[in-house]
Amino acid sequence: MEKRVRVLIDCQDNKGLVYQISKVFYDRDLNIENNREFVDKEQSKFFMRTVVTGDFNVDELRDALKKVIPLSANLQVIEPRRKKIIILATKESHALGDILIRHEAGELDADIVAVVANHKTLESLVNRFDIPFFHISANGISREEHEEEVMKVVNRYGFDYMVLAKYMRILTPNFVSTYSKKIINIHHSFLPAFIGANPYKQAHQRGVKIIGATAHFVTDDLDEGPIIAQDVIPVNHRLEWKDMQKAGRDVEKIVLSRALNLVLNDRVFINGNRTIVF
Amino acid sequence: MEKRVRVLIDCQDNKGLVYQISKVFYDRDLNIENNREFVDKEQSKFFMRTVVTGDFNVDELRDALKKVIPLSANLQVIEPRRKKIIILATKESHALGDILIRHEAGELDADIVAVVANHKTLESLVNRFDIPFFHISANGISREEHEEEVMKVVNRYGFDYMVLAKYMRILTPNFVSTYSKKIINIHHSFLPAFIGANPYKQAHQRGVKIIGATAHFVTDDLDEGPIIAQDVIPVNHRLEWKDMQKAGRDVEKIVLSRALNLVLNDRVFINGNRTIVF
Amino acid sequence: MEKRVRVLIDCQDNKGLVYQISKVFYDRDLNIENNREFVDKEQSKFFMRTVVTGDFNVDELRDALKKVIPLSANLQVIEPRRKKIIILATKESHALGDILIRHEAGELDADIVAVVANHKTLESLVNRFDIPFFHISANGISREEHEEEVMKVVNRYGFDYMVLAKYMRILTPNFVSTYSKKIINIHHSFLPAFIGANPYKQAHQRGVKIIGATAHFVTDDLDEGPIIAQDVIPVNHRLEWKDMQKAGRDVEKIVLSRALNLVLNDRVFINGNRTIVF
Amino acid sequence: MEKRVRVLIDCQDNKGLVYQISKVFYDRDLNIENNREFVDKEQSKFFMRTVVTGDFNVDELRDALKKVIPLSANLQVIEPRRKKIIILATKESHALGDILIRHEAGELDADIVAVVANHKTLESLVNRFDIPFFHISANGISREEHEEEVMKVVNRYGFDYMVLAKYMRILTPNFVSTYSKKIINIHHSFLPAFIGANPYKQAHQRGVKIIGATAHFVTDDLDEGPIIAQDVIPVNHRLEWKDMQKAGRDVEKIVLSRALNLVLNDRVFINGNRTIVF
Repeated sequence: MEKRVRVLIDCQDNKGLVYQISKVFYDRDLNIENNREFVDKEQSKFFMRTVVTGDFNVDELRDALKKVIPLSANLQVIEPRRKKIIILATKESHALGDILIRHEAGELDADIVAVVANHKTLESLVNRFDIPFFHISANGISREEHEEEVMKVVNRYGFDYMVLAKYMRILTPNFVSTYSKKIINIHHSFLPAFIGANPYKQAHQRGVKIIGATAHFVTDDLDEGPIIAQDVIPVNHRLEWKDMQKAGRDVEKIVLSRALNLVLNDRVFINGNRTIVF
Repeated sequence: MEKRVRVLIDCQDNKGLVYQISKVFYDRDLNIENNREFVDKEQSKFFMRTVVTGDFNVDELRDALKKVIPLSANLQVIEPRRKKIIILATKESHALGDILIRHEAGELDADIVAVVANHKTLESLVNRFDIPFFHISANGISREEHEEEVMKVVNRYGFDYMVLAKYMRILTPNFVSTYSKKIINIHHSFLPAFIGANPYKQAHQRGVKIIGATAHFVTDDLDEGPIIAQDVIPVNHRLEWKDMQKAGRDVEKIVLSRALNLVLNDRVFINGNRTIVF
Repeated sequence: MEKRVRVLIDCQDNKGLVYQISKVFYDRDLNIENNREFVDKEQSKFFMRTVVTGDFNVDELRDALKKVIPLSANLQVIEPRRKKIIILATKESHALGDILIRHEAGELDADIVAVVANHKTLESLVNRFDIPFFHISANGISREEHEEEVMKVVNRYGFDYMVLAKYMRILTPNFVSTYSKKIINIHHSFLPAFIGANPYKQAHQRGVKIIGATAHFVTDDLDEGPIIAQDVIPVNHRLEWKDMQKAGRDVEKIVLSRALNLVLNDRVFINGNRTIVF
Repeated sequence: MEKRVRVLIDCQDNKGLVYQISKVFYDRDLNIENNREFVDKEQSKFFMRTVVTGDFNVDELRDALKKVIPLSANLQVIEPRRKKIIILATKESHALGDILIRHEAGELDADIVAVVANHKTLESLVNRFDIPFFHISANGISREEHEEEVMKVVNRYGFDYMVLAKYMRILTPNFVSTYSKKIINIHHSFLPAFIGANPYKQAHQRGVKIIGATAHFVTDDLDEGPIIAQDVIPVNHRLEWKDMQKAGRDVEKIVLSRALNLVLNDRVFINGNRTIVF
């Protein structure tokens, strides 16, 4: 029976890897629909994403590939399935709204299982789309207590990726490491410029002529995780920081959705603090 | 003895091509420095550009590759050598000047063998760089007669690519076909918008908010050849067409030089009226 | 009582205009919050948009301004009020959805009075936002009959601007002239490239390296009206036309919303077939 | 006799300024060719750049304007004249070469009076253009001693603007303050990201998806002066830092030349640590 899988390999670079891997495909009479490779020479690391189709047994293919790649390699043979995402937000609706509209249109290869917010502001918007909304206020409780409540909800649903759609709270290392490589954030500046609070105010004060947004995986260091996508727009002296904030929203939402689509399609490898995007 | 070659393959897509080709490399213990592939599914065509290093015989490698790819395939095994370019220009100096400066800085993997122009304007600039300059006036002679004179000069020098650096004359089909796939032009608009004369005036009259430039291979149809590179800049109502022309020069020269570098590095495949750029 | 108005003047250029107009403001002790001027020298036309605040009588100000500008001038003294927009759509939800989300967030200085579509596809999305949806099928009736039905609905509501959010039907000259300068369209290409049907397919076939979108006022000539905003994104040989279409949606919706905000803020003058955007 | 001057005003904002200033023009029957204004509301500062033509006495006009603007205002009434620029460079030729080519083409409204470099590398290039070249080595002498030598040369020539065309030495506060608001630098990153040494290496390590360049006035704080122009280009994981450096050169030279043209046309106001660019 015809199948299609995505094969993702990430390992130490060795002579003959492409040959060995393509031999596995060839021997099983598989068709290569799409193939991207990259060698990080500095680190001597090999990355490959291949889409193959054919009549084959997935476990057998995985075993065969394991035999030709280094023991320490990361190998994924992914059968197509709709992923689950959970969204964390605060008060601003543009990034969340953009994802909701795409979800509604069937543009995302994912189901939004729930939206969790530390304010009630977005409840009515989320309700319009018949998606579960959880208001977990952070008032009067510690950061740890708040995260515990959030974790209860998100764990109940389960998810492949957690999307911080302008979630304006800093996460603890504990929270971040619990969902390592699964949290995607949109930072409202062209990182690494303007790390931290109110980047638009910082950008205005610095008098920059371009502003941007950065989608990245979340790691312990605030705004320091591997960057998935970035984009920018020109600004000029006429824009006050509130105008920059307003103009920046369009970049933020587009960059976040672009990054989300990339990870949903298994197109992003994490390579230390950088990414390979195929 | 350690060698490095660029292998370029362009053929009908077949199952097992990557396997067969990588086996050839593997059997000769070659190292793959860089590999890019693309399959045009609509046309069922396969494109590959691989840089391999090792201790091997180039002719033997070429023969071995020929055996595993279709008979009708285009195969190039290119040993590194500095290419020769000849430049045709008219009066404007920005595109020509940009190439001259890059050439002087050793940034181009090519030698400029000569500059041919239908006006004398650029003679002093070219002389500054000790590069042969030929003024071939088109006054009072037919297009064919003029091209004949140009061909005498360019053929005497020989070249890998002819660069039209704002050469403002239309070429005859005879001239174009003589140097098929070897002529690169910069068109001062975002093609296919504003084909033909004075695109900036056309752009201004149409009231566009963005202008651009297009580098392409020259084919019989005016401004219709395969596009190699394009770029744009924003404009607004304040710019008269002369201002657009001035602003556009920066895009023109950068796009032309970018395209030139791509072809000099054998990174461009022609695929019908389109290009594959690795 | 403190008031704020937008003064828009569009007239033949005369020496002393700025002086005469600023004198009117000065004599009434008005504060100039924002001022933009432009002179189209080719046409000798003067454009000005000024936001003034102060304690004044709007009609008296208008009369005073009329006395110092040419008789044939277009003068608008606009008191802030929320405008009304009506949206026409077909099946695609991205442009419509973007406007709905902005509307919900209070980002648009306008009320969406209704959405009219020639298919039922978008009904459930629009219903989610409690906005009237009208499905007016074009099946089995003439273009004129269909437009008559549409006009009945839109006239019942009244509107300042009609937004064609990927409305895939061609409008008759009669319809267009009925709502002259009030209809805004998003064309899914970088006009004037790829006028007409399926621009992404055209773009793919032409092998362009950049695609774009154009928001413009609708006039009789298909895709030929004054351009308000344009933007582009890079593409490459890997994208089939369906991929370009998908990537292009982000540009389309952002450009349309940007243009919509500009007209809602009275920042756009029509100057023949071009626009002045302040 | 018909004259044309640029009037630049930069002062505390007052009600009636535009009226008072335009009255001065009106009373002298001057024609306003171009006018740009901006009010920085936060700082309550007014900026204006107007080009006027007519038959008038420049000193009388200046006096008349002085009477209607605040005592503390900065007023310049500039008669057109070719400015003088001096270029400081090190080893890289792209930014210098771009300016030389524009100069040769008559595109710059300035004369290059000399090029000063701390290495000999660029001597032959500069000689090609018959422009004085001074090699002032920094070997074996202190920063202060080196700058003293540089100042001797640049002072001998005199200049309106000093252009640091990839001059890779840090200037002392003494040097900077001597030529306050007259030194323009190109920084090879999108400031404020990657301040300091080897920004491309920093950018590569951070894994950014966009790189840029920033032209700014030089102040005491390294890379912290008012920004005049910025631009960016996309990059991806395939680029090593040397590739980013190579790709970045195009942005650097275009941004520097754009900024240079802006200051030569008196289009840039310094507003604290920001600029107003008309």
